[in-house]
Amino acid sequence: MHAIGVDIGGTKIAAGVVDEDGNILAQTRRVTEPDDAASIDLAVADVYTELSRDFEIGAIGVAAAGFVNSDRSTVLFAPNIAWRDYPLQTNVRALLGNDDVRIVVENDANAAGWAEFRFGAGRDVDDMLLLTVGTGLGGAIVVGGNLVRGAWGVAAEVGHMRVVPNGHYCGCGNEGCWEQYTSGSALVRDAQSALITQPERAVRLLELAGGNAAKLEGPHITDAAKEGDPLAIELLAELGRWIGEGSASVAALLDPALIVIGGGVGAAGELLLGPARHAFENSLSARGFRPLAEFQLAAMGNEAGIVGAADLARI
Amino acid sequence: MHAIGVDIGGTKIAAGVVDEDGNILAQTRRVTEPDDAASIDLAVADVYTELSRDFEIGAIGVAAAGFVNSDRSTVLFAPNIAWRDYPLQTNVRALLGNDDVRIVVENDANAAGWAEFRFGAGRDVDDMLLLTVGTGLGGAIVVGGNLVRGAWGVAAEVGHMRVVPNGHYCGCGNEGCWEQYTSGSALVRDAQSALITQPERAVRLLELAGGNAAKLEGPHITDAAKEGDPLAIELLAELGRWIGEGSASVAALLDPALIVIGGGVGAAGELLLGPARHAFENSLSARGFRPLAEFQLAAMGNEAGIVGAADLARI
Amino acid sequence: MHAIGVDIGGTKIAAGVVDEDGNILAQTRRVTEPDDAASIDLAVADVYTELSRDFEIGAIGVAAAGFVNSDRSTVLFAPNIAWRDYPLQTNVRALLGNDDVRIVVENDANAAGWAEFRFGAGRDVDDMLLLTVGTGLGGAIVVGGNLVRGAWGVAAEVGHMRVVPNGHYCGCGNEGCWEQYTSGSALVRDAQSALITQPERAVRLLELAGGNAAKLEGPHITDAAKEGDPLAIELLAELGRWIGEGSASVAALLDPALIVIGGGVGAAGELLLGPARHAFENSLSARGFRPLAEFQLAAMGNEAGIVGAADLARI
Amino acid sequence: MHAIGVDIGGTKIAAGVVDEDGNILAQTRRVTEPDDAASIDLAVADVYTELSRDFEIGAIGVAAAGFVNSDRSTVLFAPNIAWRDYPLQTNVRALLGNDDVRIVVENDANAAGWAEFRFGAGRDVDDMLLLTVGTGLGGAIVVGGNLVRGAWGVAAEVGHMRVVPNGHYCGCGNEGCWEQYTSGSALVRDAQSALITQPERAVRLLELAGGNAAKLEGPHITDAAKEGDPLAIELLAELGRWIGEGSASVAALLDPALIVIGGGVGAAGELLLGPARHAFENSLSARGFRPLAEFQLAAMGNEAGIVGAADLARI
Repeated sequence: MHAIGVDIGGTKIAAGVVDEDGNILAQTRRVTEPDDAASIDLAVADVYTELSRDFEIGAIGVAAAGFVNSDRSTVLFAPNIAWRDYPLQTNVRALLGNDDVRIVVENDANAAGWAEFRFGAGRDVDDMLLLTVGTGLGGAIVVGGNLVRGAWGVAAEVGHMRVVPNGHYCGCGNEGCWEQYTSGSALVRDAQSALITQPERAVRLLELAGGNAAKLEGPHITDAAKEGDPLAIELLAELGRWIGEGSASVAALLDPALIVIGGGVGAAGELLLGPARHAFENSLSARGFRPLAEFQLAAMGNEAGIVGAADLARI
Repeated sequence: MHAIGVDIGGTKIAAGVVDEDGNILAQTRRVTEPDDAASIDLAVADVYTELSRDFEIGAIGVAAAGFVNSDRSTVLFAPNIAWRDYPLQTNVRALLGNDDVRIVVENDANAAGWAEFRFGAGRDVDDMLLLTVGTGLGGAIVVGGNLVRGAWGVAAEVGHMRVVPNGHYCGCGNEGCWEQYTSGSALVRDAQSALITQPERAVRLLELAGGNAAKLEGPHITDAAKEGDPLAIELLAELGRWIGEGSASVAALLDPALIVIGGGVGAAGELLLGPARHAFENSLSARGFRPLAEFQLAAMGNEAGIVGAADLARI
Repeated sequence: MHAIGVDIGGTKIAAGVVDEDGNILAQTRRVTEPDDAASIDLAVADVYTELSRDFEIGAIGVAAAGFVNSDRSTVLFAPNIAWRDYPLQTNVRALLGNDDVRIVVENDANAAGWAEFRFGAGRDVDDMLLLTVGTGLGGAIVVGGNLVRGAWGVAAEVGHMRVVPNGHYCGCGNEGCWEQYTSGSALVRDAQSALITQPERAVRLLELAGGNAAKLEGPHITDAAKEGDPLAIELLAELGRWIGEGSASVAALLDPALIVIGGGVGAAGELLLGPARHAFENSLSARGFRPLAEFQLAAMGNEAGIVGAADLARI
Repeated sequence: MHAIGVDIGGTKIAAGVVDEDGNILAQTRRVTEPDDAASIDLAVADVYTELSRDFEIGAIGVAAAGFVNSDRSTVLFAPNIAWRDYPLQTNVRALLGNDDVRIVVENDANAAGWAEFRFGAGRDVDDMLLLTVGTGLGGAIVVGGNLVRGAWGVAAEVGHMRVVPNGHYCGCGNEGCWEQYTSGSALVRDAQSALITQPERAVRLLELAGGNAAKLEGPHITDAAKEGDPLAIELLAELGRWIGEGSASVAALLDPALIVIGGGVGAAGELLLGPARHAFENSLSARGFRPLAEFQLAAMGNEAGIVGAADLARI
């Protein structure tokens, strides 16, 4: 069965027809208005109309950043779109005017993780943790071949596992959340701190930021590290260490076979994965009694959300 | 189908015939020798012979403290019994001399958690965390109605999730493991520390320990707290706080509907659960977007291992 | 000998003639421009001219927020005034046109602490720690009757003792500095976090802030606590706990007889001091082998800087 | 003036005549019984009788592990000798039968630190921190040329500054004391943990310990590190990191010019000092506004206690 996956961003939506092997057969896009929830309903319906002309579509999966209820119909809350307890499934259904097609709503990190599990880095395992290290730290969890959604649809908020009591403040209101140590934002803040405490080692970073600490961005650090800059290498290793140590805590609970690292920071490759593996090995409980979980970079590109949402809509 | 559950302890085994509703229809016991693995094989077989006289038995579930491989046949390692990569299933099968009965091996905390999930405190939920707060901190995890065993059978080592970087040393070789803050041993050590740092508040505790700090035990603390002793109440509240805060980290990953507290420390009841709930509420991410998971005491008694092992053997 | 104390603020200076018992005999003020360092030199000289008409003046002590070199003549750096390696003593001397009067420069927290030690809460002890809990956490240290200035004049930066590895980011570029847990700013941030994580308990705080979390200020919390608001009381107790625990670390090094709490947060009184004492007692090393240091509120008012600077100029 | 310094150990005392330049002119020893406090009084008097035959002695300084009261006459408590509120000065005075010689009691770490300050690594500075990294972490503090004894004689218990909230248990009853991270014992425990968590990297360490983890000692780690063993180098670097980070907290309070490292672990030399300096630099507040304190190894040998006690007795 073909399914449409729709990936809803802040200002545009991307959609595609996905077959059962995870191939995208056709794609389209729409510009949307994040403050106008109804415009997004219309865009989803419109995309269906367009793509269903040439393909027989059995299901639509809609992925978005936000909390989705456990029956996959309603967005409870979205940080960047005007959705509050928003009945996305019902609204789109009404616009479609038929009951023939299945419609489900999914969290975008879950959708991307599912794509990775079904068709990407995780296609050979049953138990997987996806960490999406971007501005924040998102993720998805697969246990025994099933996506973990939790009792109320709010599982896999991996970035909010606490790793340091009384640690960094988090926007969620708590302290010491994993994403405050393992994200592009954390990387940049740590680099900015180093500009203050270790200025003589931070010359190259400051240069790449155009001489303005406030303009420093994650890619500057990755670039400097690839050039061999010792401070940048240290900063990425520190980020990797937190990936590894936090993953060891997850492994104590879930014993995954594979940990997939996605998100922009993944561009650092082995500069990140090496320290992550080392820290994971040194922190893992029951270490002698199981193989070590592997660390791999995400294999699906930007279309992971489309592919995963489509595939989840078939289940 | 009736199944036999066998709960293997250090020096004895307890077994029972369990029906599909979790009722124990008959029980028996054997004394065993932890250093003589073959004696345990024989005892399991012997128990089957005895119990299968009066009941038609379709499966045997054997629960023991230790790491069990993911196909549930072999004990990889047991702390208290001479099992190292021990083919328990094969050995028992050979003694039984027939292939008619299913034989599975389970981790004892998983068995007890499963009993709690199927017939006890968790019977109305699909997503549950069991914490067994005894000498150490064990547990079991149920996600979407399935027991989480992990890629290599080593999941739900909840006591080794790290809660404090550079924290208390753990016997596992790491630091800051949850069980070093949330266990009877941690409770006793903290009380012993208070005997040094707050002697004037620890008079009653010392008295209950017969004047000897080294003889202080968990029940002394629970008893003192129930009498109203402020220090003992504080110590249990601190333990409860760690239960709640650690559970909030688990909830960030798994979003359970219920957290069940078992083990000897559970005797403290609300003196423990109250602070646990308070800490959980204050530490939970995405709090406004889901109901709060409930905290309940385990409802199954000492036979949880028998019941859970038998039930898992049917699956 | 009479001395003039000058307290240099961001936009004005306050000065007074101080006798050897710490009494202020006369006062005056000037408005100054923080970006115009020369204007401050002139104002100090002008103040001297005015006050020396009616009093015989032997010394001038100038106190300002900033790092002062160890021979007490130069401001190395000031956060709020355009001083960088600024020869304040030499400049004022040149304007005075005579060598008869002693001129010294002091850090403002040191000056206030010295006043407290000589004439205020610390007048009966030889070893004292002053903590000024305001926007940040400043302080002064007296050991054996002497003010501790350090090898390079930068001692008593108490707010930057680290209390939590990988803890809250600090403006100094490090993490986990004491002032990120023990200051009015920390109090407000923790309250703002509670507005997110415990909204149902934060109703009164939000009300006092006019319904706008961003407008919440320290006095709102103190006011609510005095009304009996449980959350506000908890927040102040938490602040007090950090005061006590950090002070126990200082006491391990310096064994003071007295810890004086100054700054705006002191208005909370026993709501702060009680938890501080309790935490100090429970965290102090070598506890059975010495009396407990006392905790007291600062006794000198806003003129502490004037009095202390004048007195230090006589030494 | 010549003075005698007496260094009281668990089972013997060592004494020497020390001139004003810190030279030892003569030495002697006595065997003593730690459980028989009177025998130590006699031995001190006896040593004085012997050494005063050939030298004119103006003062006796007695150094011992323990808490000494602030007027330097009484041992409040000693961990290894049967002293509890013991009037050592009065007792020795009675045995001497004259009032001509000054007698003072000092803490042994203070005595050794003072020798280092007056005649060793610290002879050119006024502000110094001594860290004695042995089984535990002791130390001495010099501020403005004066030894810091504190209000009740219990200052410079540097090992009990807290560096990790909820950290390693300490024998003092608290958690996270510096000495639990910065001592030979901590080094050995961390190595033993690595034997569990990183066995493949710990081959050489295990070999040096004769194949028995329980027999591992500090010198094995230092030796392995000097051979180039990566794990041993890492363990010493970690110890050095804690030295540097803790010292940065001390520097925030006291701004010393010099940090002297003594004790057995000092044998690791630059393998320890290099990481200590690096961590100190990266953790120091107000870093741009003062030179970096130097890290040096202690220069005085085993006689530091004798020399320091004698010299302090002259003051």
